[in-house]
Amino acid sequence: MTQGKHIVTANKALLAERFDRIFSMADEKKVNMGFEASVAGGIPIIKILQESFMTNKIRKIFGILNGTTNYILTKMTQEDLSFDLALKQAQEKGFAEADPTLDVDGIDAAHKALILANLAFGMMLDFKSVMVRGIRNFNVMDIAYARQLGYTIKLLAVCKRRKDNSMEIYVEPALIPNNHLLASVQNEFNAVYVDGEAVGETVFYGRGAGAMPTANSVISDIIDMSRDISTNHKVWYTKYMAKASEKTNQNIRNKYYLRISTHDKPGVLGKVAGILGENNISISSCVQKETGETTIPLVLTTHKCLKDDIDKAVLEIQKLKEIKDKVVVLNIQ
Amino acid sequence: MTQGKHIVTANKALLAERFDRIFSMADEKKVNMGFEASVAGGIPIIKILQESFMTNKIRKIFGILNGTTNYILTKMTQEDLSFDLALKQAQEKGFAEADPTLDVDGIDAAHKALILANLAFGMMLDFKSVMVRGIRNFNVMDIAYARQLGYTIKLLAVCKRRKDNSMEIYVEPALIPNNHLLASVQNEFNAVYVDGEAVGETVFYGRGAGAMPTANSVISDIIDMSRDISTNHKVWYTKYMAKASEKTNQNIRNKYYLRISTHDKPGVLGKVAGILGENNISISSCVQKETGETTIPLVLTTHKCLKDDIDKAVLEIQKLKEIKDKVVVLNIQ
Repeated sequence: MTQGKHIVTANKALLAERFDRIFSMADEKKVNMGFEASVAGGIPIIKILQESFMTNKIRKIFGILNGTTNYILTKMTQEDLSFDLALKQAQEKGFAEADPTLDVDGIDAAHKALILANLAFGMMLDFKSVMVRGIRNFNVMDIAYARQLGYTIKLLAVCKRRKDNSMEIYVEPALIPNNHLLASVQNEFNAVYVDGEAVGETVFYGRGAGAMPTANSVISDIIDMSRDISTNHKVWYTKYMAKASEKTNQNIRNKYYLRISTHDKPGVLGKVAGILGENNISISSCVQKETGETTIPLVLTTHKCLKDDIDKAVLEIQKLKEIKDKVVVLNIQ
Repeated sequence: MTQGKHIVTANKALLAERFDRIFSMADEKKVNMGFEASVAGGIPIIKILQESFMTNKIRKIFGILNGTTNYILTKMTQEDLSFDLALKQAQEKGFAEADPTLDVDGIDAAHKALILANLAFGMMLDFKSVMVRGIRNFNVMDIAYARQLGYTIKLLAVCKRRKDNSMEIYVEPALIPNNHLLASVQNEFNAVYVDGEAVGETVFYGRGAGAMPTANSVISDIIDMSRDISTNHKVWYTKYMAKASEKTNQNIRNKYYLRISTHDKPGVLGKVAGILGENNISISSCVQKETGETTIPLVLTTHKCLKDDIDKAVLEIQKLKEIKDKVVVLNIQ
């Protein structure tokens, strides 16, 4: 191994919360940084982004980056379990901690999303740039409705470079079409979809955690250092990457899924449609089922529209006297 | 770039047909070899095997390594096209050459399988070690039967290290369960499934050909060399990898799919079952459909059995006077 200082870490929280400071210091003090194990366990996504795809302008990364939440959502999907029961099973199997906050609230996935976005877009963004929403108390009913519409629900990290070079970076439960490869990623597995201008669409799948996959990544970093491969990745990398602009998460446009619970369907549908229309949102499909219960869920999907418009419309819908429960809003990828 | 000799090539045929000679000479003359583009286009599978998974004992590689045949099989599966029509479409779209021999007969996939197997198992095997069967004149009927049984047919490269360290390396059309990620790989895309002792199950998916994905891999090799990453991969690699034994393709055991066309179903079924039984092959399922035609296809799947036994049994079945067409044999993974 060459003379010099080397750091190998799997600590994604530290890297994400202090990205700029850590990599600036590493640059200044000529410390080589190995952090393959910090994102997606055994999947060598850091090396792929930094070496194999270096010449690409990365357009998009979608990731299932947290094994615990993917295990919980898989159990809820396959066995119609409630969130609480699925979480309990995950804890019994050792896939979730006694305090599941970091996983269930999406923070762990957001840490990894920040690291990937900074690498892919040549940035030094702060962790606060990531919008985060987890799956705590996720309702199994939304999984069933998504299934009827041909979608699977995953906790998805989205890192997008738009044509104007601004970015979207967020972690949210999202609807993914069943025929997309990410929809088939089950249990504690992770997967990262990368769309690069030269290489096109790629997907990398493997175990996101566990002693051996993590050790595999740590040791591959150490071997790289012993071969002088790791010459301070970040410095090399960010200097030559196609940089994005600092603008993040402005004017996000998606298709959306809305679930609205009401007692008075016909009247409410008119009002809801009115509010959506006034906010430039057009409805793509509408699913309703007679449940025999007093509350009737009204499930709508929209065409592409601004997230700000959806947020505004939902606030208004929520104020209608016929609406009791919280309106559920999920993006559709 | 360091002083020294560097070769970057995408020529899989040359590497596969002269593997030992080329890499031995590169070793002797200290030439750095970059060949990322030789297998699976934009998927960085060479780097992943040589760097990220170096500490793994690789147990298994399954690959969809040829975009042309995967495009043809996808069209046959999705649109019930005949082989000839699907090939014609592939040629019109530029996915198949005017002379499609290398692709359709499995030779291109076998070249890539040999390179992957030699890297993964630390070997210098000759191309003749690979058993090859392509998809020329593949019958769309077998795709339909596979679908009924819950399988998708892919031209699959199989590189397996068995517990006794002997190997299996072959390219064949094979039945893959629909819920396996490889079953969802469509059109001209490639995918490689790697099972390593430390890292576990992984899948890498992307474009297997095309100017830009190939250029991406070539350029990533050149950049590696300019950074001195590529210090003659092969030498580094094979010296430290868990080597397999030289024994290849002996006593292969699989489940098998058989389609037998006959005019006289009841009588033949008894004879066929008898022949299979005598050859230590037990039947797992049997599908028959009244087709209204004079020839009735009898479709059988077997439990795991020796390939040698299947070959022997099929020879005997083929000799029955009631059997006119060639018996179709496909392995099930």
